[in-house]
Amino acid sequence: MADDLLQANERIDQLSAQGIQIIQSSEVFAFSLDAVLLADFVRPNRKHNLQTVDLCAGNGAIGLFLNRKLGGQIIEVELQDRLADMARRSVQLNDLAERYQVLNVDVKKIYNYLPKDSADIVVCNPPYFKDHPQSEKNPNQYLALARHEIALNLKEVIEKMSGLLKMNGKAYLVHRPERLTEILSLMTSLRLEPKRLKLIYPKVGRDANMVLIEAIKDGKKGGLKIVPPLVVVNEKGEYVPKVMAMLNGY
Amino acid sequence: MADDLLQANERIDQLSAQGIQIIQSSEVFAFSLDAVLLADFVRPNRKHNLQTVDLCAGNGAIGLFLNRKLGGQIIEVELQDRLADMARRSVQLNDLAERYQVLNVDVKKIYNYLPKDSADIVVCNPPYFKDHPQSEKNPNQYLALARHEIALNLKEVIEKMSGLLKMNGKAYLVHRPERLTEILSLMTSLRLEPKRLKLIYPKVGRDANMVLIEAIKDGKKGGLKIVPPLVVVNEKGEYVPKVMAMLNGY
Repeated sequence: MADDLLQANERIDQLSAQGIQIIQSSEVFAFSLDAVLLADFVRPNRKHNLQTVDLCAGNGAIGLFLNRKLGGQIIEVELQDRLADMARRSVQLNDLAERYQVLNVDVKKIYNYLPKDSADIVVCNPPYFKDHPQSEKNPNQYLALARHEIALNLKEVIEKMSGLLKMNGKAYLVHRPERLTEILSLMTSLRLEPKRLKLIYPKVGRDANMVLIEAIKDGKKGGLKIVPPLVVVNEKGEYVPKVMAMLNGY
Repeated sequence: MADDLLQANERIDQLSAQGIQIIQSSEVFAFSLDAVLLADFVRPNRKHNLQTVDLCAGNGAIGLFLNRKLGGQIIEVELQDRLADMARRSVQLNDLAERYQVLNVDVKKIYNYLPKDSADIVVCNPPYFKDHPQSEKNPNQYLALARHEIALNLKEVIEKMSGLLKMNGKAYLVHRPERLTEILSLMTSLRLEPKRLKLIYPKVGRDANMVLIEAIKDGKKGGLKIVPPLVVVNEKGEYVPKVMAMLNGY
């Protein structure tokens, strides 16, 4: 069955820790550690009527990695046809069609498809880089759209995360430290109060290269916790045990 | 000579790493690790015409710890008479009167004493806690003023740091992670662009309990670096070598 679901230049990768198989393609889109770390950062909630939305879902990796941690329905929102199609086939491959829905729509128009104030959780791994006309972008349009703010900028992302959430719903975002100041300020101006922050350092002695943020819609002001950091690889260049556990389950 | 400079219930402590002796009193004010970490975070600059201001200077610890790292003049600003007097005597004890000045004035009125746009560097270890009428404060008025925003709040601190700095001057602040969102947003609204951030964790597996921030007045937007974190004590509860080096010089 698995092979029937694959198109040219696609492969199936495993995230053993979550019992998930996922259709990938290095030409189009393959999930990165960012997705694994964001899924790991989400707090478990197994309520059966939970509504979770993954914005900028790509090939659906984050939503799929959350399958054991979250109850209820998970909606993957992805603009690019080809990626949305990969996400749909991965849902089928994992036999999760009952709980998952893939919307191949523009996040900017999301309120035409999903009601405001309806989600308990919104997760997002958005494009990280500003779209300066002069900036060098990946000539591959799939990757350019996933990495640069061509179709969607940071303010629009945070606006939609907040808009979709119920009061006290939780937003989870992964982004670059370079933009932390802007992120925190956009969040507070858009009713999301940052409550938990985790820094990811690629190795000992290096600057952080990722930041994970949990915010609560209409949460009480202040009270941010900065939880213990994660250093991804050890001195030998091997993944540390925590990362190995996220990937392989041990 | 040293003993002549001491009043009742005061003692002289050493910061060997900086070759500094400092008059302390546990009844009134004694510097804490926060001061040592902030001084360590400041980048060296030995220009002989440098102007540095330490706001909320307490017994003058941070400014004194910077004596080898910074050239030029260092001005310590402290509201409380008793603490300003201790700072003055510590300056004398270290024979630094030529380079140091202690202003026993209210930070709120600092522009009556120091010109705006005049400092290259402003450092501050301000009161950390909001002054809620119902909040429990230290019955010791010296400590209550140093820890709670009774005489000066966060916005006033950041406003004065920014106002005193020249364009491209550097602000260095130590504070609590709980207030990071508010700090970054106040800084950007008051012409200080956060550029370097360091998290301090008391031990492995614990949330951060301090944040060190370097900001540049009128700096280009964005580009925050989160530098490698510091975990203060090891599994045995001993200071790690980096902290030992800050305290003892080895």
